[in-house]
Amino acid sequence: MTVQAAIALDVPATILAADPLDAAARVWPDVLIGRPDSLDDLLRLAERCALVTFDHELVDPAQLRELERRGFLLRPAAATMAVARDKLQQRARFGAAGLPVPAFRAAHTADEIGRFAGEHGWPVVVKARRGGYDGRGVMVVADAAGAAAAVERYRDSLPVLVEEHVPLERELAVLVARSPSGEMVAYPVFETVQRDGMCVEVVAPAPASEQLTREATDLGRRIALLVDAVGILAIEMFVDRAGRLLINEIAARPHNSGHLTIDAAATSQFENHLRAILDLPLGPAHLLVPAAVMVNVVATTDESTADGLAEALAVEGARVHLYGKQRRPGRKIGHVTVVGEDLDDVRRRARQAAARLSGEPATMRA
Amino acid sequence: MTVQAAIALDVPATILAADPLDAAARVWPDVLIGRPDSLDDLLRLAERCALVTFDHELVDPAQLRELERRGFLLRPAAATMAVARDKLQQRARFGAAGLPVPAFRAAHTADEIGRFAGEHGWPVVVKARRGGYDGRGVMVVADAAGAAAAVERYRDSLPVLVEEHVPLERELAVLVARSPSGEMVAYPVFETVQRDGMCVEVVAPAPASEQLTREATDLGRRIALLVDAVGILAIEMFVDRAGRLLINEIAARPHNSGHLTIDAAATSQFENHLRAILDLPLGPAHLLVPAAVMVNVVATTDESTADGLAEALAVEGARVHLYGKQRRPGRKIGHVTVVGEDLDDVRRRARQAAARLSGEPATMRA
Repeated sequence: MTVQAAIALDVPATILAADPLDAAARVWPDVLIGRPDSLDDLLRLAERCALVTFDHELVDPAQLRELERRGFLLRPAAATMAVARDKLQQRARFGAAGLPVPAFRAAHTADEIGRFAGEHGWPVVVKARRGGYDGRGVMVVADAAGAAAAVERYRDSLPVLVEEHVPLERELAVLVARSPSGEMVAYPVFETVQRDGMCVEVVAPAPASEQLTREATDLGRRIALLVDAVGILAIEMFVDRAGRLLINEIAARPHNSGHLTIDAAATSQFENHLRAILDLPLGPAHLLVPAAVMVNVVATTDESTADGLAEALAVEGARVHLYGKQRRPGRKIGHVTVVGEDLDDVRRRARQAAARLSGEPATMRA
Repeated sequence: MTVQAAIALDVPATILAADPLDAAARVWPDVLIGRPDSLDDLLRLAERCALVTFDHELVDPAQLRELERRGFLLRPAAATMAVARDKLQQRARFGAAGLPVPAFRAAHTADEIGRFAGEHGWPVVVKARRGGYDGRGVMVVADAAGAAAAVERYRDSLPVLVEEHVPLERELAVLVARSPSGEMVAYPVFETVQRDGMCVEVVAPAPASEQLTREATDLGRRIALLVDAVGILAIEMFVDRAGRLLINEIAARPHNSGHLTIDAAATSQFENHLRAILDLPLGPAHLLVPAAVMVNVVATTDESTADGLAEALAVEGARVHLYGKQRRPGRKIGHVTVVGEDLDDVRRRARQAAARLSGEPATMRA
């Protein structure tokens, strides 16, 4: 999706892909085959480019610092990527700055998790510091045995992050684009809907009070400054049952919560990411429509139904975005956005089209 | 721009490009180097693809018929492309079907042009049957000497098309998407503004009466059926000073007059072209916004001003689309669309951003 924005602005780009069959490599001519965790490969990439940016966090902050030491330009910088990669560091930085975060602690052992639970109550949430996404790397732990299992599971990346289990009212995402010269635009606040820790749906605008959305936006802007964001920064937040905002985690790149900006906003997050890292003026971030809903397409089988695309496109106004990825059950292979006047209607159509692409048998579909 | 739509729908494509530096070849990995007027190259392309489509008319209808004879699938078909390529055939077909066209005649000599002018009055318009675009291939001829010059200029493609010089109120474009199974959607009617025969600006919706836009849309649909269009068909029309609609010419592909659909319509013309040729359900064609204006970026020099892109993006809401083409004075190298509430405001901003990209010195700009 970044490539689609790069075409419009005529921005030359080299993509580092681990495999020539990677989704991005299939739709872009200038691809360097290499690994994002190989310093040699990163150096080969950086030598070809005026600057390097990221669309995931599977990079080693030490390698990124080494690139900067050698004079290569990273946007966002290695320091920003280091925070975005490490949930524990995020909690610590944001907490130390006085920003609202769930109660948390670093824990090396099941005993330490138990002590935290003694203070805050079971269940607690145990998270791998890094590498988790789509619900991976997160466990809700109800007792000492669960704590032991969690430490065992994440033993390669200790300490884990243990935090209070926040009873949620809803989750919000704030997307901010920020350029090196300091220009910043914030998208309207979106609601993200998770299932089993994976984002399944994003609703714009978020059904939240004006005050709450203003607070969330302000918080997003403060975090962008705090981590010296350049490009898109996505800030995921909890709203607890008491209506309190808590920072969950950040991503320093275009993010799933912002995919609906392609079809619903004056400027997509992908284009604003490019504009920001190139220090070009940012585009307006308002919605062009009263309501938009994005539903992820999560494959349910290894095989696509032959007519899934046709069935999805038969849903009035379904904007289909497929990622060219191999299907695997549980894997996000695309998304659908529907825009319109009425939120319920828009959501119903987006879910219907996404279900038709996911491979769900017709009888299972909403 | 077709490639951007192909990415979203995960449609595999092979592009036939004459040169590896062609704009499309620079943004797509699967490119076959070859000429669109070489049967061998067309055969090499067709053998790799389930179907062949077009983004220009620089193909030989006889070669396309030969492809069909050998069993390859063309969408649109060779017969449709033959009409789209030949202005004289268009006039004859549409006139014979009782559709409104300017008075016209085929002329092989200056005398024949003179006789036509004797009946219809000077000046007359002389057009090459094919190959003309952006004002090339069209001459306004005021007298017998001009007629002789026109015959001389177009001597390789006689007869020329000579037609009455219609005093214009405005020009309209109707875009229709039609699939092989017969589904058809029509975009709202757009106004096209020409300068020296080149489209410089497109306004949506067209400032025309409801009756006139309905008539234009009906005419567009009739022509789509008449030429058996598949994919996007753009129909350019004149509105004369008496408010009469006259068919000017057609293009059987995504067309400059529809570029604003990328940013302003529920489905872009490029996506609907793909959906149509693949016989997938078509997307809705309504505008998402009250007003949209597209202004072509026409290079004024061989060199870009270093900060042209930044200056253009600084115009609030400017949606910039660059084509990755080498600059040459007079060449279309991109376009800018602005969407919004107020047509005059939107037009002013689109013109301003386009001027900044064109290379016009600041003092010349609107």
